[in-house]
Amino acid sequence: MDATEFRRRGKEMVDLIADYLENIEQRPVYPNVEPGYLRSLIPQEAPEEPDTYEDVVKDIERVIMPGVTHWHSPYFYAYFPTASSFPAMLADMLSGAIGCIGFSWAASPACTELETVMMDWLGKMLKLPEEFIAGTHGQGGGVIQGTASEATLVALLAARSRTVRIILANDPQRPETDITSKLVAYASDQAHCSVERAGMIGGVRMKKIPTKQSNKYAVHGETFLKMIQEDKAAGLIPFYLCATLGTTPSCAFDRITELGPICNAEQIWMHIDAAYAGSSFICPEFRPLLNGIEFADSFNFNPHKWLLHWQIPLGRRFRSLKMWFVFRMYGLKGLQDYIRKHVELAKEFETLVRADPRFEISADVILALVCFRLKGSNEMNEVLLKRINNGKKIHLVPCQLSGQFVLRFAICARTTESRHVREAWRIISQLICDRQKRLVNLLSYPINFVVMSQTDVAFHHIYCNF
Amino acid sequence: MDATEFRRRGKEMVDLIADYLENIEQRPVYPNVEPGYLRSLIPQEAPEEPDTYEDVVKDIERVIMPGVTHWHSPYFYAYFPTASSFPAMLADMLSGAIGCIGFSWAASPACTELETVMMDWLGKMLKLPEEFIAGTHGQGGGVIQGTASEATLVALLAARSRTVRIILANDPQRPETDITSKLVAYASDQAHCSVERAGMIGGVRMKKIPTKQSNKYAVHGETFLKMIQEDKAAGLIPFYLCATLGTTPSCAFDRITELGPICNAEQIWMHIDAAYAGSSFICPEFRPLLNGIEFADSFNFNPHKWLLHWQIPLGRRFRSLKMWFVFRMYGLKGLQDYIRKHVELAKEFETLVRADPRFEISADVILALVCFRLKGSNEMNEVLLKRINNGKKIHLVPCQLSGQFVLRFAICARTTESRHVREAWRIISQLICDRQKRLVNLLSYPINFVVMSQTDVAFHHIYCNF
Repeated sequence: MDATEFRRRGKEMVDLIADYLENIEQRPVYPNVEPGYLRSLIPQEAPEEPDTYEDVVKDIERVIMPGVTHWHSPYFYAYFPTASSFPAMLADMLSGAIGCIGFSWAASPACTELETVMMDWLGKMLKLPEEFIAGTHGQGGGVIQGTASEATLVALLAARSRTVRIILANDPQRPETDITSKLVAYASDQAHCSVERAGMIGGVRMKKIPTKQSNKYAVHGETFLKMIQEDKAAGLIPFYLCATLGTTPSCAFDRITELGPICNAEQIWMHIDAAYAGSSFICPEFRPLLNGIEFADSFNFNPHKWLLHWQIPLGRRFRSLKMWFVFRMYGLKGLQDYIRKHVELAKEFETLVRADPRFEISADVILALVCFRLKGSNEMNEVLLKRINNGKKIHLVPCQLSGQFVLRFAICARTTESRHVREAWRIISQLICDRQKRLVNLLSYPINFVVMSQTDVAFHHIYCNF
Repeated sequence: MDATEFRRRGKEMVDLIADYLENIEQRPVYPNVEPGYLRSLIPQEAPEEPDTYEDVVKDIERVIMPGVTHWHSPYFYAYFPTASSFPAMLADMLSGAIGCIGFSWAASPACTELETVMMDWLGKMLKLPEEFIAGTHGQGGGVIQGTASEATLVALLAARSRTVRIILANDPQRPETDITSKLVAYASDQAHCSVERAGMIGGVRMKKIPTKQSNKYAVHGETFLKMIQEDKAAGLIPFYLCATLGTTPSCAFDRITELGPICNAEQIWMHIDAAYAGSSFICPEFRPLLNGIEFADSFNFNPHKWLLHWQIPLGRRFRSLKMWFVFRMYGLKGLQDYIRKHVELAKEFETLVRADPRFEISADVILALVCFRLKGSNEMNEVLLKRINNGKKIHLVPCQLSGQFVLRFAICARTTESRHVREAWRIISQLICDRQKRLVNLLSYPINFVVMSQTDVAFHHIYCNF
């Protein structure tokens, strides 16, 4: 394919994409395929001679689309959002064409420099303390990591190295393996499993801090202080706390204004993981949720979750182009409006749930995630979720809170409107009207868990890979 | 921006990209900017109100392009290639539009399944042993990692866990920290610094195996055997070898047919890092370089370096779409032709260098990388490289081999032809004719190292991030 043909095929692809996104509501949000469906649809080996482009394009509908979970459908309420927008797609096209690998300044100066400045823009949008900004002479600054998991790991490794250095300065003869074998990191029992994994990779012990059993699921200062005092008395070395703002299961906020001073006094590195909630802090009304950041050593969030440029994990690509296009084409106000609209839609859904006495809200609704469940057994809620996802009209995933099976309703798509939310509620509540009796009956029979086990996979993976 | 506007803007972007790539030869391959150039060209904060799209597009030429190192220029001979092609760009557009995050099967079945099958296609193209293929019932299979660095780390963590498990099975009372404090990993002294970093992250000791001081720079079995015997006698536990096929400095090949049986006998995990050279194994004439793979526990390479779909590091995107488009639009033969053409161009350059008695070849030319230098001091070669890169017509980076400063000439761009290679040689050799005397004279004066220090950054980063 030469440039002339690319001009033609590229324009066709633009139309294909616009068609796909304009008509995404017509597609079932969750695919109707069994594991292994794809392998039989395509050859076992790469072709010796080139295929035609027409054949490749035909296979998009034949092979790919039947197996796609449509994350940008307004009926997608699972996991957390992964934002997408037309400016982001345009920037991505350009980034692909430039195709540089920005592993050093010289390898592509624009790539390194735009990233630095875009991270400053972002930091200023969040009103981060001055120490987090690079500026022209600053010591701070941000970097785009592949995923939040990497950010947590990098912060833990930095903390490990800092603590070992401090201890060796006072006690140069102490073997480093003796120090590391006594290090303890901490995170909420609601924290993402990537935090636990960071501890395993870094070869340090990781302890879970119990959260209060109210609807808050937040780590409190006194609980943390008690744990570190006990650990120090036992000869261990507390060195790292990963505090979460907006947990994956219920969007809970650890009390960093209490935790921060403790960390600072004890020379414990405080890392803040705000993967989902971070984007909301660009709105003044949500910024107080970030109070306490001034005590933190490091901070990460995923703009791709909520700021309309999906997928930061572009490794060494020209990743900041996307942020630049999006920030400029929306403006700060446009992005704030976007966040606010999602939060309002979640409140609307919460109101609908609260008005129905068969249901209960399982955690405070602070941003755009509603955790809810049928009053009653876990089994009944599991069956409800199975029915919802089997219907293919809307898609949700579950979480576990205080041992309860809970449904998570996350506002995700750029195009979700009030009518979609109301329809989602109509589907859910009608399913109960139609099926409640049968749901209960079903429980006395063995349930076909084929679909449920798929949801289970997703469920575990929320904690493992999300 | 709505879908209607995206149709228009997307098509304009397709034309902009085609124009850029059709005329890339006219641009200086290496930018003429100083560090920090970009910050003053754009505002210090994101705009409150949206910018116009016209302004954003205008800024591509005003702000971005002056600072781009053009990796796809046929005058780019630095680092290693990062392949790009029109089918890859089309696939990337589609991947961006689907915008799913494939962290589990249910999160987007097509995304998971196409990746599995594409990795099988790739494994079969390389004629990997059956154990590496997933198939319908296999235990093997591949996964797209973000970068080769991650692949090395993941393999090391798997090896660490396997060895700890084996030792604990025989000696359940032994503390795990005692085991890990005695583990030793090994890699060539020519290996990429990401290997050393993997050891640091994993908290294990990493030893460098000296390579023979011929033009081969390969790890031999006897050297390795001697090292592990000494380490075992000292109470250490050898557990992991990262063998390299195609090192970054000189594209050297460790002798895996000798190393593999030693690893298997000693229960040492053999990982093979073939980041650059791996792609060439799709050609039968280069496949013997992979002999010994049957002894390996894991294997990684970067198809984006040489198989025309740049940038595997797409994190959790629908990454395999790109491979599918490219494999089909080129066919195996087309990809083989592509590799062979690059290797031939390198041979052509090697012939030109060998014909000039002022120069010497510093390492065997096996694939498409030529390591060469002026006979004489390191300083003279440093100045030569500085002159070459200052000229902005062609771009090269250096490496260090046996203490010598060496120039690396890597065939990188899809569009590089014999005429570009001959012109590159004309530029280099003319620079010598014109400047040789002045080069020598310059050495007695302090040299302005501003540009050189940028190249130095790249130089170090080859080892640190490449």
